[in-house]
Amino acid sequence: MTPLTFNHQLLAQEVRFGTGLAAANVRQAVTSLGAHRPMLITSTREEATARQITDGTGVAAVFTDVVMHVPKEVAERARRVAADADVDALIAIGGGSTTGLAKAVALTSGLPIIAVPTTYAGSEATAVWGMTENRTKTTGTDITVLPKVVVYDSDLLSTLPTGMTVASGLNAMAHCVDSLWAPKADPINRAHALEGARLLRDGLTGLSAASNAADMVASRELTLAGCYLAALSFSSAGSGLHHKICHVLGGTFNLPHAETHAIILPHVLQFNAAAGDAAHVGRLAEVFGVEDAVDGLDELYERITAPRHLGEIGFTQDNIPEAVERIITAAPKDNPVPVTEDAMTRLLMQAL
Amino acid sequence: MTPLTFNHQLLAQEVRFGTGLAAANVRQAVTSLGAHRPMLITSTREEATARQITDGTGVAAVFTDVVMHVPKEVAERARRVAADADVDALIAIGGGSTTGLAKAVALTSGLPIIAVPTTYAGSEATAVWGMTENRTKTTGTDITVLPKVVVYDSDLLSTLPTGMTVASGLNAMAHCVDSLWAPKADPINRAHALEGARLLRDGLTGLSAASNAADMVASRELTLAGCYLAALSFSSAGSGLHHKICHVLGGTFNLPHAETHAIILPHVLQFNAAAGDAAHVGRLAEVFGVEDAVDGLDELYERITAPRHLGEIGFTQDNIPEAVERIITAAPKDNPVPVTEDAMTRLLMQAL
Repeated sequence: MTPLTFNHQLLAQEVRFGTGLAAANVRQAVTSLGAHRPMLITSTREEATARQITDGTGVAAVFTDVVMHVPKEVAERARRVAADADVDALIAIGGGSTTGLAKAVALTSGLPIIAVPTTYAGSEATAVWGMTENRTKTTGTDITVLPKVVVYDSDLLSTLPTGMTVASGLNAMAHCVDSLWAPKADPINRAHALEGARLLRDGLTGLSAASNAADMVASRELTLAGCYLAALSFSSAGSGLHHKICHVLGGTFNLPHAETHAIILPHVLQFNAAAGDAAHVGRLAEVFGVEDAVDGLDELYERITAPRHLGEIGFTQDNIPEAVERIITAAPKDNPVPVTEDAMTRLLMQAL
Repeated sequence: MTPLTFNHQLLAQEVRFGTGLAAANVRQAVTSLGAHRPMLITSTREEATARQITDGTGVAAVFTDVVMHVPKEVAERARRVAADADVDALIAIGGGSTTGLAKAVALTSGLPIIAVPTTYAGSEATAVWGMTENRTKTTGTDITVLPKVVVYDSDLLSTLPTGMTVASGLNAMAHCVDSLWAPKADPINRAHALEGARLLRDGLTGLSAASNAADMVASRELTLAGCYLAALSFSSAGSGLHHKICHVLGGTFNLPHAETHAIILPHVLQFNAAAGDAAHVGRLAEVFGVEDAVDGLDELYERITAPRHLGEIGFTQDNIPEAVERIITAAPKDNPVPVTEDAMTRLLMQAL
């Protein structure tokens, strides 16, 4: 047996989870942080809901100019608003861009963040920040930007289109699966990854089969809890082969994030399944309740009508050589199955 | 379905895990804390090993007067030594009493703890402290006492007697199982509990079957990692019925801690198994790879020659009425199966 050697950094974060409880949980979070003048960060589209949720918390400033990829000038404006209003906490209510903007403000101000996700983004569980300047994205990791409290309320995700929920849920599933063989995989993030995968299996299956409102709520809760565990596992285990492939496809060919992950996942799983135990694929089969993890994921994809073809999201056969070249360079050196040019070409052909 | 509602506090802690790496990992932990004058806390029996492990870290004081249950006067002496030597970190190398003493010093001084466990105690993963004065034990929870870094090295546990390892491992298994239905059970501590149970199953089985040194090391590593996950799950989920029963038996009849837990566990599992899904017993069956969790645990007990009878550790039939009365008072109100006098009498009779 290989010796068990790892370093794992558990991060401090409070999770308050409950459908219909967003306002109550935000209020308690503000109190427990000792804050009296929070700043609300949210998009114009979500402002009305966000104001309701933060009602009575003493909001001292509201910033609604949320833009994708956190442009630096927007971050700087938000920082100025926070400083001018002398706020003592940030409440981010929205998707990944909103959380991202709050992180940019926290990065320079040290203000604590209460994150209230309205999508299945997962960035609320990580200490990773990102900002864009002159079309170049800079990212970094800083414990200061990790939200102190995350408030999950499945009601806030009830209006997301099904297609988006499925793609986001499978993006989270990809975080779980990729964590099993990622460079910093260990028993702690494996626990998060496998429980996350199970919750996502149940949640996504439930969402596609639910025949009444109560089942929909329950399935959304499972999906949301699964996304949180997925983000925990990924932020600790790091990027495995799957994420490196998707990063190349997203960055070079501008493919949509969640769909790319959803489409690529079964192919990487099949590829790494050859490594058996070394890739912990058997554990995943158990999660799916089948003999073979590849079949289990496939059955889930069929049940929930998941996206399956790169061709449908703008990738073409002509793109394959460049993609393969970049993937070979980016692939983790310790992937349990050797990453060759031939293998990656086959993988992308299949995914096409 | 019951709505999924929970509050979970993830705590910050670094885990450095590696056989033979204690000295290297302690050195890195001291550096990462920015400490230059750590105090070493260890028992006289372990002092030589502890000095080797901390060699080169600038140890400014050594305290070896470790006593069970952390008497207050010992804690105060250790605090004085720490203050006099102007130390900037605490390195605790030993079992639960050693970690406990370091926590008592941290409680009043705020000094960061590096814990290096030499038993399967698990207290290194919690923010719970305890002290004894006039034969009365006071306990509390304070984030200040949570070790900032835990250094696990299975070599330090290689000389523990097998019986003690088995009992400690099953005590940890009890933490995992009890977490499934404990008052604050949630998907996050369930992830820790089930992965912990699986590692313990593999580790304890391996320890009883290992035919060479490499297998022994590997099994010890699995047991140690399992104990950590068990402690994580328990410290978040709280005490379920199992722990309340053992607390009564230990406190009132002075039974040995780990053995009591080991003996009681199968009986509580059988009792709560009647609640099926509500007690998540099916998930445990999956961990044991069998249809029925009760059988699975039983088979494990047979394989590893676990202690089975309360009669062997000093409990008698005469003790049952008092024990049952106290258990009824202490039992969690929301145990998935109602805790009646009859049921508890039967349970203790069986365990006898």
